Amino acid sequence: MNFCSHCGHTISFRVPEGDDRKRHVCDRCDTIHYQNPRIIAGCIPFSGDRVLLCKRSIEPRRGYWTLPAGFLENGETVLQGALRECREEACATLDTADLCGIYDIPHINQVYVFYRGPLRDDRYGAGQESLDVELFSAGEVPWDDLAFPVITLALEQFFSDRDAVPPSVHTAAVTRRLR
Amino acid sequence: MNFCSHCGHTISFRVPEGDDRKRHVCDRCDTIHYQNPRIIAGCIPFSGDRVLLCKRSIEPRRGYWTLPAGFLENGETVLQGALRECREEACATLDTADLCGIYDIPHINQVYVFYRGPLRDDRYGAGQESLDVELFSAGEVPWDDLAFPVITLALEQFFSDRDAVPPSVHTAAVTRRLR
Repeated sequence: MNFCSHCGHTISFRVPEGDDRKRHVCDRCDTIHYQNPRIIAGCIPFSGDRVLLCKRSIEPRRGYWTLPAGFLENGETVLQGALRECREEACATLDTADLCGIYDIPHINQVYVFYRGPLRDDRYGAGQESLDVELFSAGEVPWDDLAFPVITLALEQFFSDRDAVPPSVHTAAVTRRLR
Repeated sequence: MNFCSHCGHTISFRVPEGDDRKRHVCDRCDTIHYQNPRIIAGCIPFSGDRVLLCKRSIEPRRGYWTLPAGFLENGETVLQGALRECREEACATLDTADLCGIYDIPHINQVYVFYRGPLRDDRYGAGQESLDVELFSAGEVPWDDLAFPVITLALEQFFSDRDAVPPSVHTAAVTRRLR
Protein backbone atom coordinates (compact mmCIF):
# COMPACT_ATOMS: atom_id res chain seq x y z
CA MET A 1 0.00 0.00 0.00
CA ASN A 2 1.55 3.26 -1.19
CA PHE A 3 -1.24 5.81 -1.65
CA CYS A 4 -4.41 6.83 0.18
CA SER A 5 -7.41 5.30 -1.58
CA HIS A 6 -9.54 8.18 -0.28
CA CYS A 7 -7.51 11.28 -1.29
CA GLY A 8 -4.61 9.87 -3.36
CA HIS A 9 -1.81 11.29 -1.15
CA THR A 10 1.17 9.28 0.07
CA ILE A 11 0.80 7.21 3.23
CA SER A 12 3.00 6.34 6.19
CA PHE A 13 3.21 3.07 8.09
CA ARG A 14 2.97 4.23 11.69
CA VAL A 15 1.11 3.81 14.98
CA PRO A 16 -1.95 6.10 14.98
CA GLU A 17 -2.79 8.01 18.18
CA GLY A 18 -4.64 5.75 20.60
CA ASP A 19 -3.63 2.59 18.76
CA ASP A 20 -0.94 0.06 19.63
CA ARG A 21 0.17 -1.22 16.24
CA LYS A 22 1.39 0.19 12.95
CA ARG A 23 -1.22 1.02 10.31
CA HIS A 24 -1.19 2.58 6.88
CA VAL A 25 -2.15 6.21 7.59
CA CYS A 26 -2.64 9.00 5.05
CA ASP A 27 -0.15 11.87 5.45
CA ARG A 28 -2.78 14.41 4.35
CA CYS A 29 -6.31 13.32 5.34
CA ASP A 30 -5.27 11.01 8.24
CA THR A 31 -7.50 8.17 7.01
CA ILE A 32 -6.37 4.92 8.61
CA HIS A 33 -6.37 2.01 6.17
CA TYR A 34 -6.91 -1.11 8.27
CA GLN A 35 -5.99 -4.49 6.85
CA ASN A 36 -7.77 -7.53 8.21
CA PRO A 37 -7.96 -11.27 7.54
CA ARG A 38 -10.34 -12.46 4.87
CA ILE A 39 -12.91 -15.23 5.08
CA ILE A 40 -12.86 -18.15 2.65
CA ALA A 41 -16.36 -19.66 2.51
CA GLY A 42 -16.31 -23.31 1.51
CA CYS A 43 -18.43 -26.41 1.53
CA ILE A 44 -18.18 -30.17 1.63
CA PRO A 45 -20.88 -31.46 -0.74
CA PHE A 46 -21.59 -35.14 -0.19
CA SER A 47 -23.72 -37.93 -1.61
CA GLY A 48 -23.91 -41.08 0.49
CA ASP A 49 -20.36 -41.77 1.64
CA ARG A 50 -18.71 -39.75 -1.14
CA VAL A 51 -17.62 -36.10 -1.27
CA LEU A 52 -17.49 -33.83 -4.31
CA LEU A 53 -14.06 -32.48 -5.19
CA CYS A 54 -12.96 -30.05 -7.91
CA LYS A 55 -9.72 -30.23 -9.89
CA ARG A 56 -8.40 -26.67 -10.09
CA SER A 57 -8.09 -25.04 -13.51
CA ILE A 58 -6.35 -21.97 -12.10
CA GLU A 59 -3.20 -21.15 -10.20
CA PRO A 60 -2.16 -21.58 -7.50
CA ARG A 61 -2.14 -25.39 -7.50
CA ARG A 62 -3.63 -25.89 -10.96
CA GLY A 63 -4.43 -29.57 -11.51
CA TYR A 64 -4.76 -30.35 -7.79
CA TRP A 65 -8.01 -31.25 -6.07
CA THR A 66 -9.93 -28.98 -3.74
CA LEU A 67 -13.30 -28.35 -2.15
CA PRO A 68 -15.57 -25.60 -3.52
CA ALA A 69 -14.41 -22.48 -1.65
CA GLY A 70 -13.65 -18.84 -2.26
CA PHE A 71 -13.50 -15.34 -0.79
CA LEU A 72 -16.67 -14.26 0.95
CA GLU A 73 -18.23 -11.28 -0.83
CA ASN A 74 -19.66 -8.17 0.80
CA GLY A 75 -23.41 -8.46 1.38
CA GLU A 76 -23.61 -12.23 1.70
CA THR A 77 -23.61 -14.59 4.69
CA VAL A 78 -20.91 -17.23 4.99
CA LEU A 79 -23.44 -19.93 4.14
CA GLN A 80 -24.59 -18.02 1.06
CA GLY A 81 -20.96 -17.67 -0.01
CA ALA A 82 -20.32 -21.39 0.47
CA LEU A 83 -23.38 -22.35 -1.59
CA ARG A 84 -22.42 -19.84 -4.30
CA GLU A 85 -18.95 -21.33 -4.58
CA CYS A 86 -20.52 -24.80 -4.90
CA ARG A 87 -22.65 -23.58 -7.80
CA GLU A 88 -19.79 -21.70 -9.47
CA GLU A 89 -17.01 -24.26 -9.15
CA ALA A 90 -18.93 -27.56 -9.15
CA CYS A 91 -22.22 -26.62 -10.88
CA ALA A 92 -23.91 -28.32 -7.93
CA THR A 93 -26.68 -27.37 -5.51
CA LEU A 94 -27.01 -27.88 -1.77
CA ASP A 95 -30.41 -27.12 -0.25
CA THR A 96 -29.17 -27.20 3.33
CA ALA A 97 -25.77 -27.26 4.96
CA ASP A 98 -24.37 -27.31 8.49
CA LEU A 99 -21.35 -25.50 9.82
CA CYS A 100 -18.57 -28.07 10.23
CA GLY A 101 -15.27 -26.24 10.64
CA ILE A 102 -13.35 -23.03 11.11
CA TYR A 103 -9.69 -23.13 10.16
CA ASP A 104 -7.35 -20.22 10.79
CA ILE A 105 -4.37 -19.70 8.51
CA PRO A 106 -2.84 -16.72 10.28
CA HIS A 107 0.38 -16.50 8.27
CA ILE A 108 -1.62 -15.66 5.14
CA ASN A 109 -4.39 -13.76 6.94
CA GLN A 110 -7.17 -16.15 5.99
CA VAL A 111 -9.97 -17.87 7.90
CA TYR A 112 -11.72 -20.79 6.18
CA VAL A 113 -15.30 -21.51 7.22
CA PHE A 114 -16.74 -24.81 5.93
CA TYR A 115 -20.34 -25.99 5.72
CA ARG A 116 -21.25 -29.56 4.83
CA GLY A 117 -24.44 -30.60 3.04
CA PRO A 118 -26.01 -33.27 0.82
CA LEU A 119 -26.13 -32.75 -2.93
CA ARG A 120 -29.67 -32.01 -4.07
CA ASP A 121 -29.34 -34.40 -7.02
CA ASP A 122 -26.75 -36.03 -9.26
CA ARG A 123 -26.12 -32.94 -11.32
CA TYR A 124 -22.60 -31.52 -11.05
CA GLY A 125 -19.83 -30.54 -13.40
CA ALA A 126 -16.75 -28.41 -13.94
CA GLY A 127 -17.29 -24.67 -13.50
CA GLN A 128 -14.94 -22.01 -14.86
CA GLU A 129 -12.29 -22.56 -12.20
CA SER A 130 -12.40 -26.37 -12.43
CA LEU A 131 -10.98 -28.89 -14.91
CA ASP A 132 -13.00 -31.77 -13.50
CA VAL A 133 -15.45 -32.51 -10.68
CA GLU A 134 -15.87 -35.98 -9.17
CA LEU A 135 -17.32 -37.84 -6.18
CA PHE A 136 -14.85 -39.73 -3.98
CA SER A 137 -15.24 -42.04 -1.00
CA ALA A 138 -12.65 -41.69 1.78
CA GLY A 139 -10.58 -44.47 0.22
CA GLU A 140 -10.76 -42.91 -3.25
CA VAL A 141 -9.81 -39.32 -2.34
CA PRO A 142 -6.55 -38.34 -4.09
CA TRP A 143 -4.92 -37.53 -0.74
CA ASP A 144 -1.51 -36.85 -2.27
CA ASP A 145 -2.93 -34.48 -4.85
CA LEU A 146 -5.01 -32.16 -2.69
CA ALA A 147 -4.43 -28.47 -3.33
CA PHE A 148 -3.94 -27.09 0.18
CA PRO A 149 -3.27 -28.40 3.72
CA VAL A 150 -6.56 -26.91 4.92
CA ILE A 151 -8.43 -29.07 2.39
CA THR A 152 -6.69 -32.20 3.69
CA LEU A 153 -7.58 -31.32 7.27
CA ALA A 154 -11.22 -30.48 6.49
CA LEU A 155 -11.67 -33.78 4.62
CA GLU A 156 -9.94 -35.86 7.30
CA GLN A 157 -12.16 -34.35 9.99
CA PHE A 158 -15.28 -34.72 7.82
CA PHE A 159 -14.68 -38.44 7.27
CA SER A 160 -13.67 -39.01 10.92
CA ASP A 161 -17.05 -38.06 12.35
CA ARG A 162 -19.49 -37.51 9.54
CA ASP A 163 -22.26 -39.40 11.36
CA ALA A 164 -22.07 -37.34 14.57
CA VAL A 165 -25.38 -35.90 15.78
CA PRO A 166 -25.43 -32.97 16.21
CA PRO A 167 -22.74 -32.34 13.59
CA SER A 168 -19.32 -31.65 15.09
CA VAL A 169 -17.79 -28.26 14.44
CA HIS A 170 -14.02 -28.39 14.21
CA THR A 171 -11.60 -25.57 14.88
CA ALA A 172 -7.90 -25.59 14.11
CA ALA A 173 -5.06 -23.34 13.10
CA VAL A 174 -3.17 -24.43 9.99
CA THR A 175 0.33 -23.10 10.39
CA ARG A 176 2.39 -25.36 8.16
CA ARG A 177 2.10 -28.10 5.57
CA LEU A 178 0.28 -31.02 7.19
CA ARG A 179 1.46 -33.84 4.95
CA MET B 1 -12.60 4.39 -2.72
CA ASN B 2 -11.29 6.99 -5.19
CA PHE B 3 -7.63 6.24 -5.88
CA CYS B 4 -5.45 3.18 -6.43
CA SER B 5 -3.56 2.39 -3.22
CA HIS B 6 -0.83 0.78 -5.31
CA CYS B 7 -0.03 3.49 -7.93
CA GLY B 8 -2.16 6.49 -6.86
CA HIS B 9 -4.12 6.78 -10.14
CA THR B 10 -7.90 7.17 -10.34
CA ILE B 11 -10.04 4.05 -10.24
CA SER B 12 -13.23 2.88 -11.94
CA PHE B 13 -16.05 0.80 -10.48
CA ARG B 14 -16.55 -1.85 -13.16
CA VAL B 15 -16.69 -5.58 -13.84
CA PRO B 16 -13.15 -6.87 -14.47
CA GLU B 17 -12.61 -9.39 -17.27
CA GLY B 18 -13.55 -12.89 -16.12
CA ASP B 19 -15.47 -11.60 -13.09
CA ASP B 20 -19.22 -11.24 -12.60
CA ARG B 21 -19.49 -8.27 -10.26
CA LYS B 22 -18.29 -4.69 -10.12
CA ARG B 23 -14.95 -4.03 -8.41
CA HIS B 24 -12.76 -1.00 -7.83
CA VAL B 25 -10.19 -1.30 -10.64
CA CYS B 26 -7.23 1.00 -11.29
CA ASP B 27 -7.43 2.81 -14.64
CA ARG B 28 -3.63 2.68 -15.03
CA CYS B 29 -2.16 -0.43 -13.40
CA ASP B 30 -5.35 -2.58 -13.52
CA THR B 31 -5.00 -3.60 -9.88
CA ILE B 32 -8.34 -4.90 -8.60
CA HIS B 33 -9.17 -3.69 -5.09
CA TYR B 34 -11.43 -6.34 -3.60
CA GLN B 35 -13.57 -5.47 -0.60
CA ASN B 36 -14.63 -8.28 1.71
CA PRO B 37 -16.46 -8.76 5.00
CA ARG B 38 -14.49 -8.38 8.19
CA ILE B 39 -14.37 -10.73 11.17
CA ILE B 40 -15.23 -9.50 14.66
CA ALA B 41 -13.60 -11.83 17.20
CA GLY B 42 -15.45 -11.90 20.50
CA CYS B 43 -15.77 -13.89 23.67
CA ILE B 44 -18.23 -14.70 26.41
CA PRO B 45 -16.18 -14.79 29.62
CA PHE B 46 -18.06 -16.50 32.46
CA SER B 47 -17.68 -17.32 36.13
CA GLY B 48 -20.21 -19.78 37.53
CA ASP B 49 -23.57 -18.71 36.15
CA ARG B 50 -22.51 -15.13 35.41
CA VAL B 51 -21.07 -13.53 32.27
CA LEU B 52 -18.69 -10.59 32.07
CA LEU B 53 -20.00 -7.55 30.20
CA CYS B 54 -18.33 -4.24 29.35
CA LYS B 55 -20.00 -0.82 29.32
CA ARG B 56 -18.76 0.95 26.18
CA SER B 57 -16.73 4.13 26.60
CA ILE B 58 -16.66 4.81 22.86
CA GLU B 59 -19.15 5.42 20.07
CA PRO B 60 -21.14 3.86 18.62
CA ARG B 61 -23.42 3.00 21.55
CA ARG B 62 -21.37 4.64 24.29
CA GLY B 63 -22.79 3.73 27.70
CA TYR B 64 -24.40 0.49 26.50
CA TRP B 65 -23.24 -2.99 27.49
CA THR B 66 -21.39 -5.38 25.23
CA LEU B 67 -19.20 -8.47 25.17
CA PRO B 68 -15.45 -8.13 24.61
CA ALA B 69 -15.12 -8.14 20.80
CA GLY B 70 -13.27 -6.37 18.03
CA PHE B 71 -11.85 -6.60 14.53
CA LEU B 72 -9.58 -9.56 13.96
CA GLU B 73 -6.05 -8.43 13.17
CA ASN B 74 -3.78 -9.80 10.48
CA GLY B 75 -1.50 -12.55 11.78
CA GLU B 76 -3.71 -13.80 14.60
CA THR B 77 -6.22 -16.63 14.86
CA VAL B 78 -9.84 -15.89 15.71
CA LEU B 79 -9.31 -17.37 19.17
CA GLN B 80 -6.21 -15.24 19.73
CA GLY B 81 -8.21 -12.18 18.68
CA ALA B 82 -11.06 -13.03 21.05
CA LEU B 83 -8.67 -13.50 24.00
CA ARG B 84 -6.86 -10.25 23.13
CA GLU B 85 -10.12 -8.32 23.13
CA CYS B 86 -10.93 -9.82 26.54
CA ARG B 87 -7.62 -8.58 27.90
CA GLU B 88 -7.91 -5.14 26.27
CA GLU B 89 -11.55 -4.35 27.04
CA ALA B 90 -12.15 -6.26 30.28
CA CYS B 91 -8.59 -6.67 31.68
CA ALA B 92 -9.49 -10.34 32.09
CA THR B 93 -7.85 -13.63 31.13
CA LEU B 94 -9.31 -16.82 29.70
CA ASP B 95 -6.99 -19.84 29.60
CA THR B 96 -9.26 -21.86 27.33
CA ALA B 97 -12.33 -21.08 25.24
CA ASP B 98 -14.67 -22.98 22.94
CA LEU B 99 -16.24 -21.79 19.72
CA CYS B 100 -19.90 -21.05 20.46
CA GLY B 101 -21.32 -18.98 17.62
CA ILE B 102 -20.94 -17.44 14.19
CA TYR B 103 -23.26 -14.55 13.41
CA ASP B 104 -23.42 -12.98 9.97
CA ILE B 105 -24.40 -9.32 9.65
CA PRO B 106 -24.38 -9.08 5.86
CA HIS B 107 -25.78 -5.55 5.55
CA ILE B 108 -22.70 -4.16 7.28
CA ASN B 109 -20.26 -6.76 5.90
CA GLN B 110 -19.35 -8.23 9.27
CA VAL B 111 -19.09 -11.75 10.64
CA TYR B 112 -18.94 -12.15 14.43
CA VAL B 113 -17.21 -15.26 15.77
CA PHE B 114 -17.66 -15.89 19.51
CA TYR B 115 -15.72 -18.14 21.87
CA ARG B 116 -16.87 -18.84 25.42
CA GLY B 117 -14.55 -19.60 28.33
CA PRO B 118 -14.20 -19.46 32.10
CA LEU B 119 -12.41 -16.53 33.71
CA ARG B 120 -9.00 -17.58 35.05
CA ASP B 121 -9.59 -15.70 38.31
CA ASP B 122 -11.56 -12.81 39.79
CA ARG B 123 -9.39 -10.12 38.22
CA TYR B 124 -11.16 -7.92 35.69
CA GLY B 125 -11.70 -4.22 35.13
CA ALA B 126 -12.41 -1.48 32.63
CA GLY B 127 -9.98 -1.27 29.73
CA GLN B 128 -9.55 1.82 27.51
CA GLU B 129 -12.75 1.20 25.57
CA SER B 130 -14.86 0.43 28.66
CA LEU B 131 -16.45 2.59 31.37
CA ASP B 132 -17.25 -0.37 33.60
CA VAL B 133 -16.98 -4.17 33.60
CA GLU B 134 -19.30 -6.37 35.65
CA LEU B 135 -20.49 -9.97 36.05
CA PHE B 136 -24.19 -10.63 35.46
CA SER B 137 -26.41 -13.70 35.82
CA ALA B 138 -29.07 -14.21 33.15
CA GLY B 139 -31.62 -12.42 35.32
CA GLU B 140 -29.28 -9.52 36.02
CA VAL B 141 -28.14 -8.79 32.42
CA PRO B 142 -29.23 -5.29 31.37
CA TRP B 143 -31.16 -6.70 28.40
CA ASP B 144 -32.63 -3.33 27.41
CA ASP B 145 -29.25 -1.64 27.47
CA LEU B 146 -27.18 -3.98 25.31
CA ALA B 147 -25.18 -2.30 22.57
CA PHE B 148 -26.02 -4.38 19.50
CA PRO B 149 -28.58 -7.01 18.43
CA VAL B 150 -25.81 -9.56 17.88
CA ILE B 151 -24.81 -9.22 21.55
CA THR B 152 -28.40 -9.91 22.64
CA LEU B 153 -28.55 -12.98 20.42
CA ALA B 154 -25.19 -14.36 21.54
CA LEU B 155 -26.12 -13.96 25.22
CA GLU B 156 -29.59 -15.49 24.78
CA GLN B 157 -28.11 -18.51 23.04
CA PHE B 158 -25.32 -18.81 25.61
CA PHE B 159 -27.74 -18.90 28.54
CA SER B 160 -30.15 -21.23 26.69
CA ASP B 161 -27.72 -24.13 26.47
CA ARG B 162 -24.61 -23.30 28.42
CA ASP B 163 -24.45 -26.77 29.95
CA ALA B 164 -24.55 -28.64 26.62
CA VAL B 165 -21.79 -31.22 26.10
CA PRO B 166 -20.16 -30.89 23.64
CA PRO B 167 -20.72 -27.12 23.53
CA SER B 168 -23.31 -26.07 20.96
CA VAL B 169 -22.12 -23.86 18.13
CA HIS B 170 -24.82 -21.47 16.96
CA THR B 171 -25.11 -19.89 13.54
CA ALA B 172 -27.47 -17.10 12.58
CA ALA B 173 -27.77 -14.10 10.33
CA VAL B 174 -28.62 -10.86 12.08
CA THR B 175 -30.48 -8.77 9.55
CA ARG B 176 -32.46 -6.34 11.72
CA ARG B 177 -32.92 -5.19 15.29
CA LEU B 178 -33.93 -8.20 17.35
CA ARG B 179 -35.65 -6.46 20.26
